[in-house]
Amino acid sequence: MRTARVTEATPDASFLYERLADELGELVTRGVLRGGDRLPSVRRLSEERGVSVATVLAAYVLLEGRGVAEARPKSGHYVRARSAADPPVPSVARRAASPARVSTAAGADDLIRAMIDGRGLVPLGCAYVASELLPLRKLNGLLAAVAREGAMLGGGYDELRGTLQLRRQLARRAVAWGTFLEEDDFVTTLGASEAMHLSLRAVTKPGDIIAVESPAYFGLLRLIEGHGLRAIEIPSDPRTGLDLDALDDALRTAPVRAVLASPNFSNPIGACMPDENKERLVKMLTRREIPLVEDDVYGDLAFDGTRPRPAKAFDTAGIVLLCGSISKTLAPGYRVGWVAPGKFRDAVEKLKFAHSVASPTPTQMAVAEFLAEGGYDRHVRKLRRVLAAQSQIYREAIARHFPEGTRVSRPQGGFVVWVEMRGARNAVDLQLRALDRGIAIAPGPIFSARQRFADCIRISTGHPWTPRIERAIATLGELAR
Amino acid sequence: MRTARVTEATPDASFLYERLADELGELVTRGVLRGGDRLPSVRRLSEERGVSVATVLAAYVLLEGRGVAEARPKSGHYVRARSAADPPVPSVARRAASPARVSTAAGADDLIRAMIDGRGLVPLGCAYVASELLPLRKLNGLLAAVAREGAMLGGGYDELRGTLQLRRQLARRAVAWGTFLEEDDFVTTLGASEAMHLSLRAVTKPGDIIAVESPAYFGLLRLIEGHGLRAIEIPSDPRTGLDLDALDDALRTAPVRAVLASPNFSNPIGACMPDENKERLVKMLTRREIPLVEDDVYGDLAFDGTRPRPAKAFDTAGIVLLCGSISKTLAPGYRVGWVAPGKFRDAVEKLKFAHSVASPTPTQMAVAEFLAEGGYDRHVRKLRRVLAAQSQIYREAIARHFPEGTRVSRPQGGFVVWVEMRGARNAVDLQLRALDRGIAIAPGPIFSARQRFADCIRISTGHPWTPRIERAIATLGELAR
Repeated sequence: MRTARVTEATPDASFLYERLADELGELVTRGVLRGGDRLPSVRRLSEERGVSVATVLAAYVLLEGRGVAEARPKSGHYVRARSAADPPVPSVARRAASPARVSTAAGADDLIRAMIDGRGLVPLGCAYVASELLPLRKLNGLLAAVAREGAMLGGGYDELRGTLQLRRQLARRAVAWGTFLEEDDFVTTLGASEAMHLSLRAVTKPGDIIAVESPAYFGLLRLIEGHGLRAIEIPSDPRTGLDLDALDDALRTAPVRAVLASPNFSNPIGACMPDENKERLVKMLTRREIPLVEDDVYGDLAFDGTRPRPAKAFDTAGIVLLCGSISKTLAPGYRVGWVAPGKFRDAVEKLKFAHSVASPTPTQMAVAEFLAEGGYDRHVRKLRRVLAAQSQIYREAIARHFPEGTRVSRPQGGFVVWVEMRGARNAVDLQLRALDRGIAIAPGPIFSARQRFADCIRISTGHPWTPRIERAIATLGELAR
Repeated sequence: MRTARVTEATPDASFLYERLADELGELVTRGVLRGGDRLPSVRRLSEERGVSVATVLAAYVLLEGRGVAEARPKSGHYVRARSAADPPVPSVARRAASPARVSTAAGADDLIRAMIDGRGLVPLGCAYVASELLPLRKLNGLLAAVAREGAMLGGGYDELRGTLQLRRQLARRAVAWGTFLEEDDFVTTLGASEAMHLSLRAVTKPGDIIAVESPAYFGLLRLIEGHGLRAIEIPSDPRTGLDLDALDDALRTAPVRAVLASPNFSNPIGACMPDENKERLVKMLTRREIPLVEDDVYGDLAFDGTRPRPAKAFDTAGIVLLCGSISKTLAPGYRVGWVAPGKFRDAVEKLKFAHSVASPTPTQMAVAEFLAEGGYDRHVRKLRRVLAAQSQIYREAIARHFPEGTRVSRPQGGFVVWVEMRGARNAVDLQLRALDRGIAIAPGPIFSARQRFADCIRISTGHPWTPRIERAIATLGELAR
């Protein structure tokens, strides 16, 4: 086992035992340690690392809490066996033959509202990371400093493209995404939602047909509905994402005006499109001059630690509108997002002005400071290790508690899992009964333009594992029977 | 003269001489003191008020700087004569006979961009108040406090309707507007722009006809264009606003789906619709079940100190969508606005979610604190006195420097004036030539769906009068010849 990680100077405030637990957890995530492997004895690890016995013990307890390790009486600590518990993944999602208007199930909006505004509920519905996993104290501290020091902050409207300091930081980060973008290639937005909204408005008009993944994030479907567009649902493979052959077929048979996709850790299934697929996708669309609206909000949260490139990295003609935000990694409530709209920049900028003039300056400034200060990479490194472990724990719990034959997606990043329950036929009903029991989930049909996936639910894995969540998963399993 | 004002305990930080100048300025604004009236001698006022001679002198110098008073050698201080310099107001705006798609003049967006992003230019283009007149230090201080104290601030999305604390404050303030609204009657937005955007989306679909004032704020026309609507332009009287007989005619002849109006200090002409007109307007629309999207961003800035009621105050059927913001009174860059959408609340809330999920929490919290702390009324009282004086100074300067026959609106609130230049036929050309000379203005045609008003420009009066601005007005006068 490498020792470099623990002994290196780490400027962040996490405790030694947490770092040790993170490191061991990562070895499990990466498959170096597997289910059933014995962990080093407390004494041996203490000597090897030059840390106290108490520190090692605390790390092991933490790993137990996270469901990664288990203590066996008189034998020591072991990596929890997974193979038996690891559930099968859903089959390739089903295919839509023809374009359809997005139809909202009666009451679906109430369901979304319950899911999002559901304070006090067990938070398995809305896709956000638990506050305690986010660097809110630091970010809020930077906001306080920005507000204290910028005497005239907020006087006058911001630049139409957004705060320059933030766009500079985004241009700097874009290099890590494998793209080359300059500060003027960005327009900042109110989260990625507004970025997608403006992008769709810029490249389509009501009645147009667009291609979307199936299942797709319900927020995107609501946008499509709101814009009066029709959607062709393209099946999405749980591992490699959008089925490009199916997309190719669709492009041949219908006048598709834009494609909407999340190549990196698509919500809800968590697929990651291989680079060669991204390249093929962009080439296919460039040839036909069809814009790609790319949702990359989960890109920084790869479980294996390698930040995948966005499809934008393969864009030579400016047809990709890359949408991102800090909502999944720093602070959803700051509503800071952006779009790099390629050749549609002027159109997007014009729409941004018409819709909301500009975004708020103070929150953008604070995020720019956070990105500039250099703590972002370290934070994200830690966050994705935690999320990888949580994802696995949730998956196993679902396998334990749900009926035989249940399939669970095996995401490669992000913090949602997609659960396919054999024989179940009414996920909306399941959601309502879960709400009655104080549990929020997202029902399958809201992820489809035609209300498919009645046998599926999406479960958020963004909250640390607790007995309360375990009980909620058990309750859901009962309700699913 | 009453003495109560100066001797009372004033908790704000303005200096004694500023308060004295404000008080005298208010007497001028209210017409108690008129142009040519002699002000009390320095010594006499000093004795009357029990303040130092230096304080009175400083107040008089300040009033001179504001253009309210003038010193006459060996004679004392006088209220500056106005009647001679006061320019005539524009005639009733012209009428459009039939609905038209909003057509953007070639390059109009560049003009808007130059106007808004025109840093370094003399700021007569964009309608915002100079930063030094806004309580930014206090607001930013509250934001800093909110950020410091709210450890988990920004974790999780805000409520779909917006931060509860802010909505509570808005409900409290609504009483002062003469309306009764509860916290759940509001949806917070990214400034009034997003409020109008969501409102329009909620009550129309592409191709619909809507009625707008003429001239109308160009941002609204851009929204109408972006939504694919057609506009009927209704003439607007420079004093009483929307011509209700003309509107009634329009409603009889075309299937108008919504009316968009700014009853209080409409931008660009600054008209204020009398209460009886507001009541008639709302009744007329209620009978026909036509929603009114009401822009009330300038409502708090009445020069005579009386906050006019919004049309919403007469709404018994929930057909008025009242849009407001703090952009004109506190901080444009905070982007905090709201809509009280009446019976369209659920539709607006759903659109808000689709477009941007929610608004940022920190900026909303800071504004809620500002409204709660009680400094808002005091600030606005002061601001509107200053703006009233500025408006008059700008109007007189325009009368001095522009060609004979130029008409200038006499707004009753807000901080823009509408200038009609006899014989001029190319306000866009004037804008371009002004830009060359480092001066931003807003050309008339961007305020019309059919690019009318080529002989008009809008001039912002939101910045304190300086020699630089006087020179710019003189330059504009030259260019207009």
